[in-house]
Amino acid sequence: MQQLTSQALEHMIPQQTKTSIMIIGGAEDKVHGREILQTFVHRAGASNANLAIIPSASREPAVQGERYQKIFEEMGATSIEVFDIRERHHCEDPKWHAFLETCTGVFMTGGDQLRLYSLLADTLLMEKIRTGARQGRMALAGTSAGAAVMGHHMIAGGGSGESPNRSLVDMATGLDIVPELVVDQHFHNRNRMARLVSAVAAHPDKVGIGIDEDTCALFEAQGLLRVVGKGCVTIVDTHEMSYTNLVNAGATDPLSVFNLRVHILSYGDQYNFHSRRPSSAPSV
Amino acid sequence: MQQLTSQALEHMIPQQTKTSIMIIGGAEDKVHGREILQTFVHRAGASNANLAIIPSASREPAVQGERYQKIFEEMGATSIEVFDIRERHHCEDPKWHAFLETCTGVFMTGGDQLRLYSLLADTLLMEKIRTGARQGRMALAGTSAGAAVMGHHMIAGGGSGESPNRSLVDMATGLDIVPELVVDQHFHNRNRMARLVSAVAAHPDKVGIGIDEDTCALFEAQGLLRVVGKGCVTIVDTHEMSYTNLVNAGATDPLSVFNLRVHILSYGDQYNFHSRRPSSAPSV
Repeated sequence: MQQLTSQALEHMIPQQTKTSIMIIGGAEDKVHGREILQTFVHRAGASNANLAIIPSASREPAVQGERYQKIFEEMGATSIEVFDIRERHHCEDPKWHAFLETCTGVFMTGGDQLRLYSLLADTLLMEKIRTGARQGRMALAGTSAGAAVMGHHMIAGGGSGESPNRSLVDMATGLDIVPELVVDQHFHNRNRMARLVSAVAAHPDKVGIGIDEDTCALFEAQGLLRVVGKGCVTIVDTHEMSYTNLVNAGATDPLSVFNLRVHILSYGDQYNFHSRRPSSAPSV
Repeated sequence: MQQLTSQALEHMIPQQTKTSIMIIGGAEDKVHGREILQTFVHRAGASNANLAIIPSASREPAVQGERYQKIFEEMGATSIEVFDIRERHHCEDPKWHAFLETCTGVFMTGGDQLRLYSLLADTLLMEKIRTGARQGRMALAGTSAGAAVMGHHMIAGGGSGESPNRSLVDMATGLDIVPELVVDQHFHNRNRMARLVSAVAAHPDKVGIGIDEDTCALFEAQGLLRVVGKGCVTIVDTHEMSYTNLVNAGATDPLSVFNLRVHILSYGDQYNFHSRRPSSAPSV
């Protein structure tokens, strides 16, 4: 009976309000096919979408906000608000809270993830967005810094070109939208495998997810990810991790990390966070 | 009875003639502790060593040969020959074949692995060295290009900063000293994870091994590796690989590669190629 009710409900939910959390690796195509941004607008309701753009990670929020507004308008969206939050108290603006009542999609731009976090964390505005996205009432997309903030733990910065080590990655707290993830972006483009490994070794209860540029990890349903875009999504799964020297290692000592399971996913591939299994894109 | 004989034989083999194949990730310390080079000289017999240096990968073989000769002399070795092979027919020089009769250690320098391969492949000289090393009659070390040639398949070149893809790595044939490996060097230093993944996806019967600078994968016994030096040795094990799109992917299409098992090893950690299991450094 429970199941019947769920199925009945599923049929009542229109396509555009299914869960659509989009974690984008930065540098998404804004000129040609624009598949990732198109997907966002489509999932938010296309010409019926009410879109909010949060450019607060950027040092040029007005420029970034306008840029995405123009793109989304070209895609047919007519109702767009730029939430130009530059101080924490801006999050209390009743105008934006009113807009969120009927908002169908929120887009967080790139910039500095620490800036984005410090402006939005623990605000009622953010709580409404998180809840709306999780319940499938709105699509939520974040690119680059907007992607980095998705997890409970966040990679705030780090390096490359070194053996994995504790000081290779700076961890901070994220906006907790998909708590089970540690997200890294511009992933293969900026050679970030060693820093993601260093991050998950310290947080083995999380799953590391590295997203390449112009690539999106699209969470369509609870715990199910599908790849959209030009590059790879890399899953670093620690649940079989049998050993790390991390606790005893000095800050720059090379790490030992045994039994990581790594999946490289490309276009159309899926990953199920419950079964921890990837599946390949259906052949056309 | 077989076992007793093996055990008896083991006791008869002096320390310095145990298998010692040393695969070095390049840029090994030549000034301070020089642990990796010390290990090589020690395993080749220290002051009783008869050492051959093969600088043929280098464009400046005389300079490289002299450099290592000086270092090994400072470590107490007195009998050292530089096999300055610049043409394939140099491999037939009877002087060097005579030296190999009592040689206890061969060191291959860095440079260009394709040059090293083209000078040594399929020569009687190389066959004698390979056999001597495998049978434990001599230590064999290779650094950088000298490490790259160790497998049956060799990474001849490639790139970084991209999603794994077929064109990210140029494969060639190696000197087949440890056939089951695909070796990459300067590994984390030059961000080569994506190229090693691209390489092993195409050769899933091999094990990928990425060796950082000033780091050595020391094969002490058949199928057993121990880490010496300052960085990490990364094992990319494909034996559980369940899917790759490699065969159907275009040259620059991003790859899908599911179920890689990855181990990051640091100083003193071991890896057993038979059981495919890592073990941590014994605590001191």
